[in-house]
Amino acid sequence: MYTLKDMLHVKSIAVVGASNHSGKIGHTLLKNIIDGGFKGSIYPVNIKEDNILGYKCYKDILSIPEEIDLAVIAVPAVIVNNVIKEAGQKGAKGAIIISGGFKEIGNNDLEAEILETAEEFGMRIIGPNCQGVSYTANKMCATWPLIKEQGFIGIVSQSGTIGAALSTWAEKDEMGISCFASLGNKSDISETDFIEFFAEDPNTKVVALNLEGIQNGEVFVDVISRASQKKPIVVLKPGKTAKGMKAIASHTKSIAGNDRIFSAFCRKYGVIRANDITEFYDFCKIAGSSKKPKGNKMLIITSSGGAGIIATDTAEVNGIEIAPINEKLKKTLEDILPDQCVISNPLDLTGDATADRYDKALKAVIDDGSYDFLLTIFGDPILGANNAISKYKNDIPIIVSYLGGGEIEENEVKIMNKNNIPVFPTPERAVKAAKALLELKI
Amino acid sequence: MYTLKDMLHVKSIAVVGASNHSGKIGHTLLKNIIDGGFKGSIYPVNIKEDNILGYKCYKDILSIPEEIDLAVIAVPAVIVNNVIKEAGQKGAKGAIIISGGFKEIGNNDLEAEILETAEEFGMRIIGPNCQGVSYTANKMCATWPLIKEQGFIGIVSQSGTIGAALSTWAEKDEMGISCFASLGNKSDISETDFIEFFAEDPNTKVVALNLEGIQNGEVFVDVISRASQKKPIVVLKPGKTAKGMKAIASHTKSIAGNDRIFSAFCRKYGVIRANDITEFYDFCKIAGSSKKPKGNKMLIITSSGGAGIIATDTAEVNGIEIAPINEKLKKTLEDILPDQCVISNPLDLTGDATADRYDKALKAVIDDGSYDFLLTIFGDPILGANNAISKYKNDIPIIVSYLGGGEIEENEVKIMNKNNIPVFPTPERAVKAAKALLELKI
Repeated sequence: MYTLKDMLHVKSIAVVGASNHSGKIGHTLLKNIIDGGFKGSIYPVNIKEDNILGYKCYKDILSIPEEIDLAVIAVPAVIVNNVIKEAGQKGAKGAIIISGGFKEIGNNDLEAEILETAEEFGMRIIGPNCQGVSYTANKMCATWPLIKEQGFIGIVSQSGTIGAALSTWAEKDEMGISCFASLGNKSDISETDFIEFFAEDPNTKVVALNLEGIQNGEVFVDVISRASQKKPIVVLKPGKTAKGMKAIASHTKSIAGNDRIFSAFCRKYGVIRANDITEFYDFCKIAGSSKKPKGNKMLIITSSGGAGIIATDTAEVNGIEIAPINEKLKKTLEDILPDQCVISNPLDLTGDATADRYDKALKAVIDDGSYDFLLTIFGDPILGANNAISKYKNDIPIIVSYLGGGEIEENEVKIMNKNNIPVFPTPERAVKAAKALLELKI
Repeated sequence: MYTLKDMLHVKSIAVVGASNHSGKIGHTLLKNIIDGGFKGSIYPVNIKEDNILGYKCYKDILSIPEEIDLAVIAVPAVIVNNVIKEAGQKGAKGAIIISGGFKEIGNNDLEAEILETAEEFGMRIIGPNCQGVSYTANKMCATWPLIKEQGFIGIVSQSGTIGAALSTWAEKDEMGISCFASLGNKSDISETDFIEFFAEDPNTKVVALNLEGIQNGEVFVDVISRASQKKPIVVLKPGKTAKGMKAIASHTKSIAGNDRIFSAFCRKYGVIRANDITEFYDFCKIAGSSKKPKGNKMLIITSSGGAGIIATDTAEVNGIEIAPINEKLKKTLEDILPDQCVISNPLDLTGDATADRYDKALKAVIDDGSYDFLLTIFGDPILGANNAISKYKNDIPIIVSYLGGGEIEENEVKIMNKNNIPVFPTPERAVKAAKALLELKI
């Protein structure tokens, strides 16, 4: 049997059902594999075409002159079994089946059939009825939308849309992802395979897990208990309300389970639970870019009094201690900062603060050593903000919020994202992310 | 006495303390007034310069050959009174004083002095110690960052940063604002002046109010009670926790007051209260672009089962009724939609849904008339999504969430923002915004 790792480190891909029509999924898949920069061989397969997007097109997999490693399949359900067979004969290690029309509409036999064929050849199956997989270290974007930027988040998502949303945001933020996997019917590969893979994958620093239901509870608990000791895991699991659970049942025919038990399970293993899609993204960002603080004493450093107040409110609600500045540190800060600064927690560097003023304040605070982590708010167009943070980010966990800074903010935030500095557009999101960090056990 | 309206509809501006140094506020202010596209006369004033950014520079206001309507002031506090006097002599209707160094650091007399001088000439004062004002209908960006896009949100913000953040997001979303006003010390013009102005201003459809403390409770209650009958008002008021209130006291020397009383006051007048800066923006967007639904029965239409579940969960938590589809509508939808669609609430049009499929479903649902508002989730790259919504948005309040759609999403969302369709990046944000709409009394 091949492994999931084999399936992601392929050197040649056949796109079966590739198309010249830009509206078709078979076109999008081929285009994204090409535009994603895949370095291996790409073979479009379609009985009616000679050439697609500049690549020679083959009538069937068997006509391809070389062996293939992976088949990406977007053809009608009834043809899929034969495609798997041909792929197996050509040495494929696995197939990603985008096509629907299997178990999700009651065609259980058809799904069992393709699984049997795959097993014959030791092939592994992702899908059917899924949105594909992108593995950026191999520049293999066998999904949509197009994701190119390599980053540290490994996403395995029941919902193609939620995984795609995270990927899109990470791409736009120039932060990137390591992987986006949409599972569909999970006939073979399931979330636990991906979690185990991510736990060992050197390209992945944090596991983003979107679950609706859990098929095999024992395997799930076993895999999570081991993987959570190696990498931070962030989970988004809806179905908290009765109506939500009902909607899950009609979506994936799976049972959401008792939400409180699931929450307790997460706490036990230090799995961070996100309450919404925004938190899902934010918590992945912080868990992959920041160490767990030693305690919950936070200092807020801000150029905006108003944003500092909002951060204080949010911290108090979330059980983070905004501890007063001690007398010694107060004196130091009074010496190095201009008169208008407010030396308290929040430490208000005021609206004309420069990156240099932040640098001085950060140094003094870190030397003092009273705080476990810092929330640094840039509430104005402050040039070089990223340098001040980069300089100290290995000394203490620093969470950043940058807002109200126009074009300068946009550039600074991009650099921070590239440099794995956890930066958020509002103080509330930054504080909640900081809180999430405290839930980790590693 | 001139009015705030006079101050915003000016035809000539003197920028006192304008500078050739790009790091200085006096440079940024002049540059943003120029780049914002102000159509009237612009006069930089600086004793040391002959020319700034291509404009002839004057030694003082009195040397300007014509009358001026507005002075934007960024010079040391001790000089400000004289500048106001000269501006008054030149016929100015008002002054925006960016300079700090007044009441906020105990210089109460200096602040009283400038107010007295202004009163002599009937001039009005915004500030001192503020981040200025942008009024897009007059292309007057006397603040930072640069805001050019004209939209319908009128922002008056205690915190320059929070107002600037909203403005930046609205600019980036190509939705724009009507006004961003930062108040600073509020020596003359306060939030109540702006609320009254916005209530009558044809360019403003919704009032965004960021408050820390309230100076004159009676005036505030009176103004809100009247303005809230004319325009939706969205308020962000931090200081919900003890530490947050303490931070407010050290920021603006004002008292946050009892939070529960404030909440009750908001409910009485249909003022929408935002819990965080993200909601502040989202609630303004929806209150300015959507009518209040007749009731709380919502249908979710989605291409993503997963996003539909999340929306259902969020709706249930927020007291929105996700009512089942009646038998008659069910039959209609079964007739017009493909087999794989799940005819329930959420109505799952599935991942291959096109704008045309949404169009058909929307028409059937609106004809049926059972629902008070619709949440339409586009969870895939769906081209023409904006057309399907535009066609029906006057028939029923339609709230949109678009996610996971890559480049197509980006373009569609821009068009929706330009067309005043309330669109949000996650289903949770969309549902919370829908809930906020129900709080309105107009």
